[in-house]
Amino acid sequence: MSDHIVSSYDNDLENLRRSISEMGGIAEKMVADATDALVRRDTALAQSVIVADKRLDTLQHQIEERAVLLIAKRQPLAIDLRETISAIRVSGDLERIGDLAKNVAKRVVAISDQAVGQKIIVGVKHMSDLAQAQLKDILDAYAARDIKSSRDVWERDGEIDALYNSLFRELLTYMMEDPRNISFCTHLLFCAKNVERIGDHTTNIAETIQYLVTGETPTGDRPKDDASNYTTVEPAGA
Amino acid sequence: MSDHIVSSYDNDLENLRRSISEMGGIAEKMVADATDALVRRDTALAQSVIVADKRLDTLQHQIEERAVLLIAKRQPLAIDLRETISAIRVSGDLERIGDLAKNVAKRVVAISDQAVGQKIIVGVKHMSDLAQAQLKDILDAYAARDIKSSRDVWERDGEIDALYNSLFRELLTYMMEDPRNISFCTHLLFCAKNVERIGDHTTNIAETIQYLVTGETPTGDRPKDDASNYTTVEPAGA
Repeated sequence: MSDHIVSSYDNDLENLRRSISEMGGIAEKMVADATDALVRRDTALAQSVIVADKRLDTLQHQIEERAVLLIAKRQPLAIDLRETISAIRVSGDLERIGDLAKNVAKRVVAISDQAVGQKIIVGVKHMSDLAQAQLKDILDAYAARDIKSSRDVWERDGEIDALYNSLFRELLTYMMEDPRNISFCTHLLFCAKNVERIGDHTTNIAETIQYLVTGETPTGDRPKDDASNYTTVEPAGA
Repeated sequence: MSDHIVSSYDNDLENLRRSISEMGGIAEKMVADATDALVRRDTALAQSVIVADKRLDTLQHQIEERAVLLIAKRQPLAIDLRETISAIRVSGDLERIGDLAKNVAKRVVAISDQAVGQKIIVGVKHMSDLAQAQLKDILDAYAARDIKSSRDVWERDGEIDALYNSLFRELLTYMMEDPRNISFCTHLLFCAKNVERIGDHTTNIAETIQYLVTGETPTGDRPKDDASNYTTVEPAGA
């Protein structure tokens, strides 16, 4: 009987892991597709990102419900309890990553008929490539319970922030050069901010992996700060 | 013995409720202070908002841990289980509201030495007043398990979005009129967006109250959409 309970519990955990893995795949694809849609001004692809978000929401709710039932039914301790709590946290972050990708996709629709400087879009794409690489690495680290690799991702979040800060300045300068740039640059600013926040959620997942493996959530400041909160740019003639 | 267990369980729930109430009070004050700091360009007040956010993070972690332990220890069913899950959800939303208020506060520091159009700041304040009123109402509804009042708040989120959309257009127009407005208007755009998202988290809490009282999470679309995702504005001369 005890064997049966253990194996059924393992099944429950395995199901949670599988759902997280499915969410991770969807979130990765949404970020990649939203970025491609932005670069190619592809509104059909953008629409598909908006639609994909519903599946992510459903999965998150399922994971949350199943994790809570599992806690109530099995009263897991130590590592098993952390595994279940981690599933809830990671699914929350993946759901938010999906929301942020969806928001980028909506803005692709907004600027679809605008003459947009491709160079500046490439800056957003560059940020997004970095965010996607980190998301992939952190999902691998979560699947493998790889604390070293999760620590690497945690420390790399500063790279995305640095790119965001320089892009923020560049976009403001571009807006000052020509008022016709203001509308789409504003949307690109929000796109860039969304990508920066995707990086934050990836960093959250890195912290959850630390908690999962060690039982401790990292304290101390993250090796990052969004300095653009404090950034202003003056017009050339001012 | 059974009585003792029940009353100790009630104690645990009561403690959760008290912590949520403390979080609610802090979040309300942070939103109000961040807004006042913006209106008065008061960087000292803004700094106090940034500091207050740490307490909110600590409380959220405590609530999450205690709620999960409670589920594992007591195996609550039905309403008691929903109460515990709701505490986790609401504390997550309040923590995010604090983050958003903190982000507004950081931007107050950024624009502190800029000549800023007061009229446009009043627009952000107007949005924030609405968001604060809804936050207060939803915290009262949560404390009273008042589903009717939570439904009212849920339906009112569209008002904040409507204000945000008109402010978004106004800010873009203002940026087009004079490039010297671009830097601070960009920060105000993000401030306004933060307030709009505070409204979203208030709506989340309204949905949690529905779930808490009825066992069902509202399905169907929220009576809102951030149309600014799709909005562009052309310069007058274009």
